Amino acid sequence: MLAGERTTNGWLALGSTFSAEIMGHAGFESVTVDCQHGMFDFHQMLPMLQALSATPATPIVRVPWNDPAIIMHALDAGAYGIICPMINTAQEAKKLVHAARYEPLGGRSYGPARGLLYGGADYFEHANAEIVVFAMIETREGIANLDEILSTSGVDGVYIGPNDLALCLGAKPGSDFTDQRVVDTIAHILARARAHGKFCGIFCANGAAGAKRRAQGFDLVTLGHEGSLLASAAKAAIETALASGSGLDGSQSGY
Amino acid sequence: MLAGERTTNGWLALGSTFSAEIMGHAGFESVTVDCQHGMFDFHQMLPMLQALSATPATPIVRVPWNDPAIIMHALDAGAYGIICPMINTAQEAKKLVHAARYEPLGGRSYGPARGLLYGGADYFEHANAEIVVFAMIETREGIANLDEILSTSGVDGVYIGPNDLALCLGAKPGSDFTDQRVVDTIAHILARARAHGKFCGIFCANGAAGAKRRAQGFDLVTLGHEGSLLASAAKAAIETALASGSGLDGSQSGY
Amino acid sequence: MLAGERTTNGWLALGSTFSAEIMGHAGFESVTVDCQHGMFDFHQMLPMLQALSATPATPIVRVPWNDPAIIMHALDAGAYGIICPMINTAQEAKKLVHAARYEPLGGRSYGPARGLLYGGADYFEHANAEIVVFAMIETREGIANLDEILSTSGVDGVYIGPNDLALCLGAKPGSDFTDQRVVDTIAHILARARAHGKFCGIFCANGAAGAKRRAQGFDLVTLGHEGSLLASAAKAAIETALASGSGLDGSQSGY
Amino acid sequence: MLAGERTTNGWLALGSTFSAEIMGHAGFESVTVDCQHGMFDFHQMLPMLQALSATPATPIVRVPWNDPAIIMHALDAGAYGIICPMINTAQEAKKLVHAARYEPLGGRSYGPARGLLYGGADYFEHANAEIVVFAMIETREGIANLDEILSTSGVDGVYIGPNDLALCLGAKPGSDFTDQRVVDTIAHILARARAHGKFCGIFCANGAAGAKRRAQGFDLVTLGHEGSLLASAAKAAIETALASGSGLDGSQSGY
Amino acid sequence: MLAGERTTNGWLALGSTFSAEIMGHAGFESVTVDCQHGMFDFHQMLPMLQALSATPATPIVRVPWNDPAIIMHALDAGAYGIICPMINTAQEAKKLVHAARYEPLGGRSYGPARGLLYGGADYFEHANAEIVVFAMIETREGIANLDEILSTSGVDGVYIGPNDLALCLGAKPGSDFTDQRVVDTIAHILARARAHGKFCGIFCANGAAGAKRRAQGFDLVTLGHEGSLLASAAKAAIETALASGSGLDGSQSGY
Amino acid sequence: MLAGERTTNGWLALGSTFSAEIMGHAGFESVTVDCQHGMFDFHQMLPMLQALSATPATPIVRVPWNDPAIIMHALDAGAYGIICPMINTAQEAKKLVHAARYEPLGGRSYGPARGLLYGGADYFEHANAEIVVFAMIETREGIANLDEILSTSGVDGVYIGPNDLALCLGAKPGSDFTDQRVVDTIAHILARARAHGKFCGIFCANGAAGAKRRAQGFDLVTLGHEGSLLASAAKAAIETALASGSGLDGSQSGY
Repeated sequence: MLAGERTTNGWLALGSTFSAEIMGHAGFESVTVDCQHGMFDFHQMLPMLQALSATPATPIVRVPWNDPAIIMHALDAGAYGIICPMINTAQEAKKLVHAARYEPLGGRSYGPARGLLYGGADYFEHANAEIVVFAMIETREGIANLDEILSTSGVDGVYIGPNDLALCLGAKPGSDFTDQRVVDTIAHILARARAHGKFCGIFCANGAAGAKRRAQGFDLVTLGHEGSLLASAAKAAIETALASGSGLDGSQSGY
Repeated sequence: MLAGERTTNGWLALGSTFSAEIMGHAGFESVTVDCQHGMFDFHQMLPMLQALSATPATPIVRVPWNDPAIIMHALDAGAYGIICPMINTAQEAKKLVHAARYEPLGGRSYGPARGLLYGGADYFEHANAEIVVFAMIETREGIANLDEILSTSGVDGVYIGPNDLALCLGAKPGSDFTDQRVVDTIAHILARARAHGKFCGIFCANGAAGAKRRAQGFDLVTLGHEGSLLASAAKAAIETALASGSGLDGSQSGY
Repeated sequence: MLAGERTTNGWLALGSTFSAEIMGHAGFESVTVDCQHGMFDFHQMLPMLQALSATPATPIVRVPWNDPAIIMHALDAGAYGIICPMINTAQEAKKLVHAARYEPLGGRSYGPARGLLYGGADYFEHANAEIVVFAMIETREGIANLDEILSTSGVDGVYIGPNDLALCLGAKPGSDFTDQRVVDTIAHILARARAHGKFCGIFCANGAAGAKRRAQGFDLVTLGHEGSLLASAAKAAIETALASGSGLDGSQSGY
Repeated sequence: MLAGERTTNGWLALGSTFSAEIMGHAGFESVTVDCQHGMFDFHQMLPMLQALSATPATPIVRVPWNDPAIIMHALDAGAYGIICPMINTAQEAKKLVHAARYEPLGGRSYGPARGLLYGGADYFEHANAEIVVFAMIETREGIANLDEILSTSGVDGVYIGPNDLALCLGAKPGSDFTDQRVVDTIAHILARARAHGKFCGIFCANGAAGAKRRAQGFDLVTLGHEGSLLASAAKAAIETALASGSGLDGSQSGY
Repeated sequence: MLAGERTTNGWLALGSTFSAEIMGHAGFESVTVDCQHGMFDFHQMLPMLQALSATPATPIVRVPWNDPAIIMHALDAGAYGIICPMINTAQEAKKLVHAARYEPLGGRSYGPARGLLYGGADYFEHANAEIVVFAMIETREGIANLDEILSTSGVDGVYIGPNDLALCLGAKPGSDFTDQRVVDTIAHILARARAHGKFCGIFCANGAAGAKRRAQGFDLVTLGHEGSLLASAAKAAIETALASGSGLDGSQSGY
Repeated sequence: MLAGERTTNGWLALGSTFSAEIMGHAGFESVTVDCQHGMFDFHQMLPMLQALSATPATPIVRVPWNDPAIIMHALDAGAYGIICPMINTAQEAKKLVHAARYEPLGGRSYGPARGLLYGGADYFEHANAEIVVFAMIETREGIANLDEILSTSGVDGVYIGPNDLALCLGAKPGSDFTDQRVVDTIAHILARARAHGKFCGIFCANGAAGAKRRAQGFDLVTLGHEGSLLASAAKAAIETALASGSGLDGSQSGY
């Protein structure tokens, strides 16, 4: 599914199924439906996943919490990957895996609603192998237990939320993450994931940050939050439109 | 309300209330909820208008058609301006005005749901004066009847949809509108609106096009379609992230 | 269905299915789902009608316009009565009846979705007899053509929207409708309906106005708009709570 | 798109996006989203069309009425075919075509929201050729004007709603349509469509009726209404479960 | 409420309020709204329960998890029964009961929204007695602790999900459950429930399986998943329509 | 934000965004969106909070449970206050604070969606100071641990749900709370909150009860449940309309 190559990932927060399709066709290898900080819940996540199914992008869900009911529901609704926030211990990582994997690897309840449609009648045979599970490392406790979390069977990788990471290290969110503690911790997490042979993903504010993270070796690089992309584009359009010296008057306009 | 100065206008098509707020805070003087080609109807238009009420932007609705039921419903739901597609004759313009104005200027039915909340108990006293009505000129018939439409009492201005205008003139949509017939017709419409002392608005694909239209003298300049802004931003982010020679490796990254 | 006795009618404008149930259980003989000035459309009207089905109240829909598609859809969704705004001529009244009645009385398209569930397999046999059709008289043209409208076969009665009626007579909406022109016209409409042996209904702002209208002989008396009832109740509660001299202190409170 | 071979068509009335996917994967060549008698409107039609995009079935929309705003909106939302009820005259057929075709064949307004995503950037070039337009013949007037309707350029075929056809001929709906007038009229419509080289489609209550219609030569054969399929299946399951002599007791059950 | 006789139960997974009504009128004594594997959450569960209130079927909710917030919310929204997945210990069973019963039997928070409407002002007096609580036994741990779970005061019965049961026993889901371990365990659970004088319910794929389970003595027998019923019916209709030798041509058709 | 003066608070349970606006404009200083017993969840809470943003009222959310995912999501969606039910111990109070406060006071995850729009780019700097956290005291355990809960850093106050309080004390809900145990316990909680210098809020059934509670010194006084206000107003209107001796007949009516 996620072939281990360096993947660009889109990030859905607006709760629009039309936008989900736009992002799914934009060129990302995967698109994540963010049920934690995104402005929607299962009711809108479902048609967003359905809309993504008609695009080339692999659908991932960032669940709001390490809650088995929600993780299982997202998988039944068609998520091919789960990003779970705030994994602090190996025990929490095991709980996450338990919710995301069928027997004998876990205890996911059987009832793969959409899975039988897009995955076929043998969905059950392949689900454990195909679904990717990311644990988010974003607390002091999570950093301290990083190796144990990475050692947890069934965890495919870790995902870094730089804002929460910065917060727990005493830095500020929304910054450019140049605080040395943040820089070092991100490098540490990436190195440990590499050492364990697991994926490492990270949220980036935009394409430029994403380029740097890809160069650093991250496997899954999120390229900006849907709302931020739109807000930036809107503000840039206004700025362009209002710029003085636009150099055109009606008589000579090509329009 | 719309003070006649050159206004930048945002354009909502995604059907997201969160996105409506983002656009309402982006800096546009007005934001239009597009119920014609946007991927939503009244059910989602309502909370989008409610979301816009908490932003500095004036909410406009592009109705799907010259249908009094829909025009009145959009006004009851809080639109301060109406853009109505496909106005072809003075009779159609009068029908539009009839739907958008209370007695004695028209026949809008009384029941201004949200109007009583954001406009106050005296909403009725001010509604006719405050609400702006734009007729879209985008057919051969509409062009032929332009002066009669502009002469219609209660029509505040005209709005140009360049794609449909191009189509009716034998040019293609989605182009850069450099076809001379399109250029001339747009200039003609703007000139006639000026001559009648009425507003002239136009849809522009992006900020650069908007700058040119402002320079040409358009009063209301739409700066890109929400979905296009997002798609362009997403594609640009991917391109940036994938660009070779990003010049950074893990050892020296500032991140 | 509506047995011709003087009926109290509730009025739904909030778009809440829970509120629909509350109103349906409040004691009204009928409850009207207002799709014209109410803040919802078919998408929310459907579950509101479904919610009303479990209450003793007969569900009526005020459609937004004399549009056959919408009238038929409302009936398929379970309306037992239709109130149609802005009926101005006998021709418009016939169009309304055509949409609301099956052959041979009209041209309603067959596909009575919910009708087969709550009305039984023989819904078709009874629908024409059971469904009540009200034409709203609220324009000068409608008043002028009142007798022709009342003579239209298939129109069961007329319904008065006093606000629009006041507007078209040169009075103001939201008043107490003591303007003599309004008083006389309402009396005239009621008298003509009586003369034709048809129902006459009217919207009243509250229970006191409803009592007067019942005393005048109106058959269907709407007792306040859902939003107004709530707003008044909320403001009264605040006033009560803030009133000085509430006469209680903590030491002696019965609470 | 619709290759002219005899096509089985599914029919969506429940308003569930999950059900849309189930039906889209069931084996139908096309699936029709019924916005006329189905219990939903645009708000739910959109995600149903999005869900269908990930299935092999071609999405068709039965619009509620010959209303250009709704027809254009359905096409922008991704319909590849339009079935329009109650087409009675050549003039109405032309109005239908005008709404469904871009210039120069019609006057469809440009703004193909989802079309640009699933159809590609050149959607405009292909839309007129790919989209299929069916006029429903289901009134006496429509039958009388059948040849003119079939002669209308841009109408690809006719579609028969047997219930309304029966009604207008004096028969009852929901019957098995053995009334000779209905039998003859259906045969007549099919023959005339054949003579004009146009498609002929028909609604059938179930698979057995569909087999007969296919044998008669219909091109597009709808196989039961989603709600009826479900209701029948549920009732059959109950009957089976309650049948006496189920022949099993606990001691010998294979379960 | 559930009178202890052998009950047929419908199962809602599509998230359609119209479908809920269809199933509620199909003849089931109870209908379960499946919030665990069904493709919806509270937002759609509410109008589904409202729709069921107008049918003869008793509404049950399968909650997604043993989460007191969700259990209480489902009860406030009108569930008369709760089926809770993955009950593994007596402690978990007690937690379930605590959420579903008011003082003094449990700790359900008071605020019975819809309960006051359909249950009357004295809802509180009867709720503890009327609401039925089922614990699902579907894990090895649950099987091991079966007697303790059945002994828990306030648990009215157990409900078997054969798929998860099969999985935990090393068999496959979706099979016909003829694996001897599954057969024996189901028989064991039924026998122990009988011994404790409690209800025993089970999910069955279709009516035939339901007949067998009824013969075995199950009290509550679910007859197929809404989505499966529909998918099977649709596939059967296609098969019938496509079958060669349908033996009819146009000239002799009864249609 | 909440200035410590005696505040009247509205209570939303109907799930209507229009009603949210009506209540937000009614005069309450704050309005609480009740996600516990209200008939909606996040999907409708979001546009209700957006609607409240355009009113003078401060938006509070009563979360359904002490669940960090839900608390954080409500805050990201724009809540300025959290009322959390069933806080029984200091440990639970700390968990509540942890979810509601950013580092270093807690562990709220960063992603303040709407916060950046209405709160500005520096939302993070002010959020911990501005957001008000109420713990509900409504169980015997909570009463026993009241001082520890009030001592918990980050808890701004307690909120009393008299119904659950009555239940846990052996009294009945929905009463007038004159049971001496209830009276004494409420007085005790208020006194202890005062002693700790923290807020004390309480739910009141109506304005009269609110007046008494204000006189007793409560800081935040909820004035009736939205559904109850509406139901009472509707019943009063019916009673008024039906009252005999309304003293008016048609001939002398001022209407």
